Amino acid sequence: MPCYALLLEYDGAPFVGWQRQESGLSVQQVLEEAAARLNGGALPLVSAAGRTDAGVHAEGQVAQVTLVAALPPERVREALNFHTRPHPVAVLGAAVVDAAWSARFSAIGRAYRYRILNRRARPALDAGRVWHIQRPLDAAAMHAAAQGLLGRHDFSAFRAAACQAKSPLRTLDRLDVSRLGEEVVIVAEARSFLHHQVRNMVGTLVEVGLGRRPASWPRAVLDGGDRTRAGQTAPAEGLSLTGVRYDPPIAWA
Amino acid sequence: MPCYALLLEYDGAPFVGWQRQESGLSVQQVLEEAAARLNGGALPLVSAAGRTDAGVHAEGQVAQVTLVAALPPERVREALNFHTRPHPVAVLGAAVVDAAWSARFSAIGRAYRYRILNRRARPALDAGRVWHIQRPLDAAAMHAAAQGLLGRHDFSAFRAAACQAKSPLRTLDRLDVSRLGEEVVIVAEARSFLHHQVRNMVGTLVEVGLGRRPASWPRAVLDGGDRTRAGQTAPAEGLSLTGVRYDPPIAWA
Repeated sequence: MPCYALLLEYDGAPFVGWQRQESGLSVQQVLEEAAARLNGGALPLVSAAGRTDAGVHAEGQVAQVTLVAALPPERVREALNFHTRPHPVAVLGAAVVDAAWSARFSAIGRAYRYRILNRRARPALDAGRVWHIQRPLDAAAMHAAAQGLLGRHDFSAFRAAACQAKSPLRTLDRLDVSRLGEEVVIVAEARSFLHHQVRNMVGTLVEVGLGRRPASWPRAVLDGGDRTRAGQTAPAEGLSLTGVRYDPPIAWA
Repeated sequence: MPCYALLLEYDGAPFVGWQRQESGLSVQQVLEEAAARLNGGALPLVSAAGRTDAGVHAEGQVAQVTLVAALPPERVREALNFHTRPHPVAVLGAAVVDAAWSARFSAIGRAYRYRILNRRARPALDAGRVWHIQRPLDAAAMHAAAQGLLGRHDFSAFRAAACQAKSPLRTLDRLDVSRLGEEVVIVAEARSFLHHQVRNMVGTLVEVGLGRRPASWPRAVLDGGDRTRAGQTAPAEGLSLTGVRYDPPIAWA
């Protein structure tokens, strides 16, 4: 049976997260029910590179699905976009992939972006898309602190209690903090991340940005390995999965 | 009584537009009811530089209000942000202005941005913020065509039937079309615009972008002066009032 990779954009706000749950509608359920319409009614499994939490957005999530009938990828993309309506989930691309290919395990890189709106007034246009912090953040100090987290480490200090990964070892390739006008934007890249790792790193860097902790502190938290010493978990709504890399890259239709 | 200028951001989606109407909630009503809370309960008039239509957003609208009590502008800003909740209206700044100053008539420049999402898949994250056009647009041809509209002209061909301006003469200072990845962005600047002028110019430029009309056509429409010959009125949701200029500039608190 033919396997397809899917490139996805979604607004995380109305969902309980990527993964199916009894408690509400998930992105996975929306896609599986749409894919069933192309599959003679049988519900196929749709699995993703990153199981985003409730409220987390995606601009470049990658998922996979196996269908009973061979369809051109353009047709899969268009039909899924039709059947996912009116939910805020869009299929930006589709591609035929090998049965051995895995959206999750074949990924060699994941990129996230975290947006902080740093001004007095609450967001009107970007409500639900940013973490609103009123007190001024020192983005340069946050960036300097972030560089201390790069490389291969035991990231237990930034790991959620519920994290199911076997190993807390991860290699952080990029953690850039920059100011764009009223926004402070954090970009994180790694082969993979622990559960809540990006949000916990952001919450810790914000302590530095507010001047409550020195720029050396996030590295000390990392070395301590104790989650209770890190900053708060940054809210889900500021986070977006912006891309997943594969080798060879996927040629999206 | 002290007069204040207000710098505003709002999401146009839930409103009938800037102006009060019987048919639903307006941005003006939200602000007037919030301002009444600082005004001993008396409803003050809040008037704006641009009376945006239903669905049109603002990132830099300017409005004015006169209150009975003299308050520091920071206090006006914070209190209005408190009392406008939970509506998507934010006061980014406030300033004390002279009683002779008018948000509308003292403005020497207005800037709008129109966003088109030009890809196959419908918007998931930018739903309600963009005009979705699936067929590829030639942004360079649109930009070339737009340059033919610059300068002082009778813009009757791009004017809404309901437009109440005394004269159809306007001076268009800037009309730039550029592609940013999947988006085509149009930036328009003038001292003032006729009702629907930006949306009608965008709808006309899109005809060029789709290859249905040559780049010389929008200027021919302008010269013809006949609204029925122009393109469609582009949807409100892609439009945002990004800024209003004054001389001297306002020092926002």
